[in-house]
Amino acid sequence: MSNFVDYLIKYNKDLKPIIDATFDKEQIAVGKIVPMAGDMINDYKKFLSGGKKLRGCEIFLGYQMFAGMNKEEGLLASLTIEIIHSFLLMHDDVMDQDDLRRGEPTIHKKYAKHFGDHYGESMAITLGDEGMFWAYRILNSLHFSRANMSKASEFLSQVLLEVGIGQALDITYEEQHKFSEEAVLQIHRYKTAEYTISGPLSVGAILAGADEKKLKAIKDFGIPVGIAFQIRDDELGMFSTEEELGKPVDSDLKEGKVTLLIVKALEFASVEDKKFLQSAHGNQKLTKEEVERVRTIIINSGAFAYSQKAARDLVEEGKKFIPEITDNIVYQKLLVQLADFVIERQS
Amino acid sequence: MSNFVDYLIKYNKDLKPIIDATFDKEQIAVGKIVPMAGDMINDYKKFLSGGKKLRGCEIFLGYQMFAGMNKEEGLLASLTIEIIHSFLLMHDDVMDQDDLRRGEPTIHKKYAKHFGDHYGESMAITLGDEGMFWAYRILNSLHFSRANMSKASEFLSQVLLEVGIGQALDITYEEQHKFSEEAVLQIHRYKTAEYTISGPLSVGAILAGADEKKLKAIKDFGIPVGIAFQIRDDELGMFSTEEELGKPVDSDLKEGKVTLLIVKALEFASVEDKKFLQSAHGNQKLTKEEVERVRTIIINSGAFAYSQKAARDLVEEGKKFIPEITDNIVYQKLLVQLADFVIERQS
Repeated sequence: MSNFVDYLIKYNKDLKPIIDATFDKEQIAVGKIVPMAGDMINDYKKFLSGGKKLRGCEIFLGYQMFAGMNKEEGLLASLTIEIIHSFLLMHDDVMDQDDLRRGEPTIHKKYAKHFGDHYGESMAITLGDEGMFWAYRILNSLHFSRANMSKASEFLSQVLLEVGIGQALDITYEEQHKFSEEAVLQIHRYKTAEYTISGPLSVGAILAGADEKKLKAIKDFGIPVGIAFQIRDDELGMFSTEEELGKPVDSDLKEGKVTLLIVKALEFASVEDKKFLQSAHGNQKLTKEEVERVRTIIINSGAFAYSQKAARDLVEEGKKFIPEITDNIVYQKLLVQLADFVIERQS
Repeated sequence: MSNFVDYLIKYNKDLKPIIDATFDKEQIAVGKIVPMAGDMINDYKKFLSGGKKLRGCEIFLGYQMFAGMNKEEGLLASLTIEIIHSFLLMHDDVMDQDDLRRGEPTIHKKYAKHFGDHYGESMAITLGDEGMFWAYRILNSLHFSRANMSKASEFLSQVLLEVGIGQALDITYEEQHKFSEEAVLQIHRYKTAEYTISGPLSVGAILAGADEKKLKAIKDFGIPVGIAFQIRDDELGMFSTEEELGKPVDSDLKEGKVTLLIVKALEFASVEDKKFLQSAHGNQKLTKEEVERVRTIIINSGAFAYSQKAARDLVEEGKKFIPEITDNIVYQKLLVQLADFVIERQS
């Protein structure tokens, strides 16, 4: 899969000066009015320097694939989803009550130092809202045709509406202890799939003038691959290291996140293991040894193998639609590698 | 000022079937996936049936003023700011920890009934985000030229970015106990002025194809009138009734909101009254008698008269720019009445 990874690395390298210029300009403008918010834009510039920026890369790929010619504008366009993503994470972190993100204190934790928790959360809500408005402003001030920018805005809004539905499902099912494969895949479908794969590819494609037929093919490709992305994400959330994740590797388990691994382990495990799993899932006070036992159950029950196979099947299903997206063999190959990357990645 | 009020009443009447159709359609679509979110759209339809809908009316007025011909599309466009406003209030209510809005429990309070306070706040954050995406989707799917919809999206994003800066200033100054006329007017400028008057008028004008010169005149008119709007809002927050406000009339005082009335009363009052004011401002446990004493101090110190004169001066300053906005005497008159309405309104 080296080619797509090379493409991703090159994209990140090319994006860096665009991030610096965009954030510095905004920081100066906003910092004049609210010094604290200016500092915060600076914090977020640092934040954006981390992460894979897969979604941004896909906007750029979608743009290039449909013969988008202006490289700098394509990169700038790609920044919109990375800004939205960063700022959505601010809201997510408040909801999940997470303290760490990419190895740094989360925004609400950082601001809580000034005037307490409620102030920290209020600032995280406000600054999250700002990120969204900022992204829409950028998306509608590029040097593309106004028609394509409006179409891209409409499309992106629809994708983000689905993320919100997924989020509402997620937090509600968690409280209702609704554990089923169907529920998990429904959340993945809404919260992640389109937003992570077909959404960004389509935004780039729309800006480059792609037609409805192409957008349909991107969606057919991206939905199964996007669901696989989240399945892989949940695997990493259980079996990766704190170093790789930038947050405690047991946090999904402790906060009681509903994942395919947990659902299947509950289904496949012995009565005794099942009982233990139920008591461990959502338990904030798990010891290291107990976390290790959960991992062992997930592997030995066959839940991990089930999850890997489900993700692989989805990826292969998505790949079938690649020829309908593009005739260009170079881009076909990149899309195949992107799909494989989604489930083979280690972080 | 009867003409503008008639215009506002007529607008509300015409908008009602548009609200019903739009929300019902969305409720059915979303309700299929998340019944709870579907119910919530219904709740918000009820919410939108209350309120003056001044901002929506201004989008419609801006649209008509520049010869926008398609009445139904103009009404639908006007709905975008009302949706954004409603959903911004959800975030505001979490930040201000308010329990009541328009006489009903706030969204986070309503959802807290299901699974506790944190769940309630998480849902209010998520559903607030959804409102913004929904509004952008509507704004970019109207039957106007894509070019004008993209321009309107860019413009609206900039206005909303300023609201966020104002909100960050507001919550930060409140914690810092930064009490000065300059600070208050700075917050009003960012948080309210453009968003409440020139912003909506301009969005309508842009959709109807108005040029930059006209938009500049609308801004020159709307900024001072918008600041006056907030000054009046704070007067009503202190002297209106719970019935008129839809929330306790002492809530601004108890949560320590920084208003021109408080700043000036602290400046003008006797040493003894000043001391009392300082202890009362931000005190959650004020008695009815103490609230009454604050009111008396605000009036007797001359702070109320100062506030009223400041608002009147701002409105007159704004009115000077009306001839640059339009030659049409009917619309000139409506704008004069709108400006007067802003400071003469009783709710």
